[in-house]
Amino acid sequence: TLSVSLHMNGTGNLMDFLDEPFPDVGTYEDFHTIDWLREKSRDTDRHRKITTKSKESYWELIKSLLDAWSGWVVMLLIGMLTGTLAGVIDLAVDWMTDLKEGVCLSAFYYSHEQCCWTSNETTFDDRDKCPQWQKWAELMTGHSEGAGAYVLNYFLYVLWALLFSFLAVSLVRVFAPYACGSGIPEIKTILSGFIIRGYLGKWTLLIKTVTLVLAVSSGLSLGKEGPLVHVACCCGNLFCSLFSKYSKNEGKRREVLSAAAAAGVSVAFGAPIGGVLFSLEEVSYYFPLKTLWRSFFAALVAAFTLRAINPFGNSRLVLFYVEYHTPWYMAELVPFILLGVFGGLWGTLFIRGNIAWCRRRKTTLLGKYPVLEVIVITGITAVLAFPNPYTRRSTSELISELFNDCGALESSQLCDYVNNPNMSRPVDDIPDRPAGPGVYSALWQLALALIFKIVITIFTFGMKIPSGLFIPSMAVGAIAGRIVGIAVEQMAYHHHDWIIFKNWCRPGADCVTPGLYAMVGAAACLGGVTRMTVSLVVIMFELTGGLEYIVPLMAAAVTSKWVADAFGKEGIYESHIQLNGYPYLDVRDEFTHRTLATDVMRPRRSEPPLAVLTQDSTTVEDVETLIKDTDYNGFPVVVSRESERLIGFVQRRELTVAIKTARQKQDGVVSSSVVYFTEDNPQVAEACDPQPLKLRRILNLSPFTVTDHTPMETVVDIFRKLGLRQCLVTRSGRLLGIITKKDVLRHMAQMMNQDPESIMFN
Amino acid sequence: TLSVSLHMNGTGNLMDFLDEPFPDVGTYEDFHTIDWLREKSRDTDRHRKITTKSKESYWELIKSLLDAWSGWVVMLLIGMLTGTLAGVIDLAVDWMTDLKEGVCLSAFYYSHEQCCWTSNETTFDDRDKCPQWQKWAELMTGHSEGAGAYVLNYFLYVLWALLFSFLAVSLVRVFAPYACGSGIPEIKTILSGFIIRGYLGKWTLLIKTVTLVLAVSSGLSLGKEGPLVHVACCCGNLFCSLFSKYSKNEGKRREVLSAAAAAGVSVAFGAPIGGVLFSLEEVSYYFPLKTLWRSFFAALVAAFTLRAINPFGNSRLVLFYVEYHTPWYMAELVPFILLGVFGGLWGTLFIRGNIAWCRRRKTTLLGKYPVLEVIVITGITAVLAFPNPYTRRSTSELISELFNDCGALESSQLCDYVNNPNMSRPVDDIPDRPAGPGVYSALWQLALALIFKIVITIFTFGMKIPSGLFIPSMAVGAIAGRIVGIAVEQMAYHHHDWIIFKNWCRPGADCVTPGLYAMVGAAACLGGVTRMTVSLVVIMFELTGGLEYIVPLMAAAVTSKWVADAFGKEGIYESHIQLNGYPYLDVRDEFTHRTLATDVMRPRRSEPPLAVLTQDSTTVEDVETLIKDTDYNGFPVVVSRESERLIGFVQRRELTVAIKTARQKQDGVVSSSVVYFTEDNPQVAEACDPQPLKLRRILNLSPFTVTDHTPMETVVDIFRKLGLRQCLVTRSGRLLGIITKKDVLRHMAQMMNQDPESIMFN
Repeated sequence: TLSVSLHMNGTGNLMDFLDEPFPDVGTYEDFHTIDWLREKSRDTDRHRKITTKSKESYWELIKSLLDAWSGWVVMLLIGMLTGTLAGVIDLAVDWMTDLKEGVCLSAFYYSHEQCCWTSNETTFDDRDKCPQWQKWAELMTGHSEGAGAYVLNYFLYVLWALLFSFLAVSLVRVFAPYACGSGIPEIKTILSGFIIRGYLGKWTLLIKTVTLVLAVSSGLSLGKEGPLVHVACCCGNLFCSLFSKYSKNEGKRREVLSAAAAAGVSVAFGAPIGGVLFSLEEVSYYFPLKTLWRSFFAALVAAFTLRAINPFGNSRLVLFYVEYHTPWYMAELVPFILLGVFGGLWGTLFIRGNIAWCRRRKTTLLGKYPVLEVIVITGITAVLAFPNPYTRRSTSELISELFNDCGALESSQLCDYVNNPNMSRPVDDIPDRPAGPGVYSALWQLALALIFKIVITIFTFGMKIPSGLFIPSMAVGAIAGRIVGIAVEQMAYHHHDWIIFKNWCRPGADCVTPGLYAMVGAAACLGGVTRMTVSLVVIMFELTGGLEYIVPLMAAAVTSKWVADAFGKEGIYESHIQLNGYPYLDVRDEFTHRTLATDVMRPRRSEPPLAVLTQDSTTVEDVETLIKDTDYNGFPVVVSRESERLIGFVQRRELTVAIKTARQKQDGVVSSSVVYFTEDNPQVAEACDPQPLKLRRILNLSPFTVTDHTPMETVVDIFRKLGLRQCLVTRSGRLLGIITKKDVLRHMAQMMNQDPESIMFN
Repeated sequence: TLSVSLHMNGTGNLMDFLDEPFPDVGTYEDFHTIDWLREKSRDTDRHRKITTKSKESYWELIKSLLDAWSGWVVMLLIGMLTGTLAGVIDLAVDWMTDLKEGVCLSAFYYSHEQCCWTSNETTFDDRDKCPQWQKWAELMTGHSEGAGAYVLNYFLYVLWALLFSFLAVSLVRVFAPYACGSGIPEIKTILSGFIIRGYLGKWTLLIKTVTLVLAVSSGLSLGKEGPLVHVACCCGNLFCSLFSKYSKNEGKRREVLSAAAAAGVSVAFGAPIGGVLFSLEEVSYYFPLKTLWRSFFAALVAAFTLRAINPFGNSRLVLFYVEYHTPWYMAELVPFILLGVFGGLWGTLFIRGNIAWCRRRKTTLLGKYPVLEVIVITGITAVLAFPNPYTRRSTSELISELFNDCGALESSQLCDYVNNPNMSRPVDDIPDRPAGPGVYSALWQLALALIFKIVITIFTFGMKIPSGLFIPSMAVGAIAGRIVGIAVEQMAYHHHDWIIFKNWCRPGADCVTPGLYAMVGAAACLGGVTRMTVSLVVIMFELTGGLEYIVPLMAAAVTSKWVADAFGKEGIYESHIQLNGYPYLDVRDEFTHRTLATDVMRPRRSEPPLAVLTQDSTTVEDVETLIKDTDYNGFPVVVSRESERLIGFVQRRELTVAIKTARQKQDGVVSSSVVYFTEDNPQVAEACDPQPLKLRRILNLSPFTVTDHTPMETVVDIFRKLGLRQCLVTRSGRLLGIITKKDVLRHMAQMMNQDPESIMFN
């Protein structure tokens, strides 16, 4: 009867203590990997509970409906906040970029364009020089021309740039170190199931938004697109915390973050479909169909919110929306493919150079002085950028100009063609004309700008400020493309009789669109760096809106990917993931080696045997010693050390909490108490034995196992597709060892001859 | 020494016989499920072999490069053939549809439009009546007007329709029974890993193409879109056979088929991006990123090939490309959402009605007379369709007219508005006008056409001819949408002062575009039937080309999906898959029940124990008896019957072949030989014992196992994501039972209270 009452008592205690869940079960430690299967089954449990409850009362039914709708509400909120932030960032960047050159007298918070909007001048050129807008030299000295004014403007331009970048780097350093960089490598890692606390926090959101404006305005060779994805994901994380469905489940949270990433790209490029595909192709890890639909919704809401804000004053979502009027010809595929080759080479050069520089930053003294580094690079950038009109302005304006076809009213240098005075065609369809002196000088300046951008971008990306590389990459490609485009155009004009032009280019026709070349070049360079494919083409398609130009874009994107892949399989994001040693299991890497699970599992032959618990012969003290002596995430439980038959797996965290709680709350649990994992009630042999501790409820009875002969290829596939943290290895029913995600990654790195030690723990 | 020589001999034989692979290993039987993991690892092996060889000589290097490129070549070929077939089908349908009404005197193979193309008449209306085109009555009797001519035309219209449909159904019956239906349910099943031999064969391709033309031309309420996907997949399968990489690997073949499906939708709707998303969202099962990129390529090639053929004479890919000139207003979301509700209700009605009818066809005498059924339905359709101008013409022309905005030159009944004589606006921007008598009569005819289409489509889909339901669904939605659109337009015109119109509709403005309502209605109805979401919106977006109209489309698509989902989770394709009992494990179904692996595994408690082999105590005769007595696909191998420790799994097919081959080729293998699966060489106890048969090489040493406590939810997930055929169930290292894909499907059906017996075997 004693044993019965003890047992009853024990069960009672046990039930109590299982009904109230452990305080931190279900959360993970920082820099640890989540268990996708477990998160999924926890969500199913939650869902089941709500469904059952919803039949009980109307109130519960309403609650269950609210729960079902919360996903859409989160998407709506993310879309609205992301769109708003993107709009605010665009407006602020516009204003602060212009602030480097001058100020609006009618209202200091107007940008140059807004300032001159109401001006009466008719041509674009005159409007640029409206009286309300004053350059600094003019304002200070009264002279707008001359060497003195130039030097003063130059000096103030550099000073503002230094001020902005100093502010940016200081804010990042002091308040939110995670706000630096593009954020996409980290987001990829987080979406694959890694925990980086604070990376998507409110503080990061705030600081990243502010410093992004400062960094872009400072004129550094960086863009806002990548950081916007990070900002959107921070918004996603923020709104997750409103609903316990998302905040308490790391798996569900990642579904929301995938959608947020789509919203980020949607506003960055004004391309909602492209954004969804980017999230699917480039960023996300687990992308169920439900997420596809919701991502699309979030991306659309974000795009329409941005359009409502209308930061560019053209009811378009992007600065570089273009419309071309002439088709392209088969023969033009040759220069397009050449641009693809250039893009691939640029991608290789950039990735290698940038990674080498970042590695140096990590290992040498350089990394100790991030503020100084930013200041120096900003100084160099500003000093070199000012003299060249194509680098002085903001990079997105440059791209916009390069993409544009020269209309009849265009007054920029690039459109300085020699006009035929007899021409009386409609505005849209201007025939090819010989280039004027402006075009030739523009070509020189563009060539210098190209070299400058190529070099400086390699050093800029990765500094301790928010920095995206979409815009600089596109700028490099757009410059190269425009140069090639003008060359082809002039060749076609001057050599109508050449065999290649004869068929499609009659004199007086508009055969070549240099703007299209710029766009193709931009796609090629972006593709070379990021290795995006479908999403890249779709984003560009959404910019032009015409199916016709897909073939050139695709030809260039495919070529650049092939060329770049020939020099190294990894895009810039994967390279940075590797550089930082994040435990990222790439979905695209194919593991083709012939190793078996037995080659990877631990313990190795020379190592001490696997730390296991037995189902009914380990004491509390033994367990505590084991926990103290090892740092494993969990322990397999076997029937006995002799038989080595596996019965389950217990998490370290849960074991610690359970023992601690039992020691405090459960009478009679002492160091010599035996820990039981069996289904049957432990037989207490003698009354004087200490009360046993029954822990079957924290035992995972369905641990994942593979046999020792399983090819690693299959193991890698299982880890990837099921999102496992660890997997036990057995042989004819006997437990042999364990393979963790870290082991898999280390093995893959070894097989590819990389530095296996750089993989971050667990 | 005897044992050593025996062993040497044995090994020698064994190696010989393993070097030449069994003739049919790697192929699967008809109506069986493939093993995705195995296919994948076979492909990796192949790839590894080629990579190793490529280092040996230049010839091998070239071969390996060719192998790497073969994927792109296949895509190119698929795109080109699919595009060509789609173009030919469009042209043929155009001609044959018109043939029902009359013939072109200048060239009999011209369609009505082509015939009158060179005519001198200026207005559309006059051009329609060009002298070269003669209706049958005119040609035969010389009279084009009057009751007699009408009756004769009517009679010939019905006769042609009956002839076409009779030809179609006869061809299908005699030559290719698999050519009937839309094909999408079967393709979904095939892509999920099922084998249906001949479903994608050359013969099916030929007959489906021909009968599709006949079926569409006969005027039945069916479309060509679904069958085009089937045709594209047949093309994919055809080109797979050119490369052993694809023809010999069922997994790789399915990657190609996914891309082919995208190409099919791309030409069906002129929407390459939509096609890829359709393949991703609706059809495909395993869709790696490499496939995404290749699908996109195939879809684009197909689209451009179709455009080169230019079947509609408008350089567009579809008959119903539209451009709208006015924006939509917030208040219009109310009718759009109502259209969404209508679409959802239509979807529910259609699916329930059609499934009930198809079930009746399967179970009653009706199914015995497919030819008669087609003839009767065609007769009814033709007799009822002729009097109404909106049902007489082809359904896609109807949709095209309903989508179009009324321009100034439009002469159709639907555009018979009362014009303001003082109007002198540009052509594009016509203000809302009061409806004329033509519009009112058109409305009545449309209402009748709507009822007719709704009823007849339910009976048409599923007959033994190729039949798609995209076009009929869209027609139902477009008619309903246009009616609602005209109603709203007239309300807005006559009641400018109503509070809802006051804000956005001034008198004399063009506020309401009835064509947009038709498009929204079409999207809603299509969504209700198929439950497509993103791909639907993207396809519609590609038709209009404007981001503006995405919100109305999305509102309608979401509403229709929600409404339809409220009445039943399954779309028409899933319903047909279930009706036919295909073993399809839907990726979207969430399994939320609390059952465990132990509840599903066989043997059940009352059943005889699991048929297993032991590693070293089964004789050849035992194995042969086991193979004869059971029909399992394979057998687990255990250490001994007592310990029940699992060591591997052996396929029935391989076991049969191995024993047969050994009996023929290996000396000393007799019925009493012991079959060994152990790693060590069998100890031949006495010289007189028969020579043992060592079969370890055919043993799969890494069978998939789960514990009996694994939740079925996880098991379903594993089956889905890893594409397993079977999974063994263990408990503390002992083999308990087996779960096959069929068991999983049966269990899921049980849990959802469906008829579990209808699932096709294995």
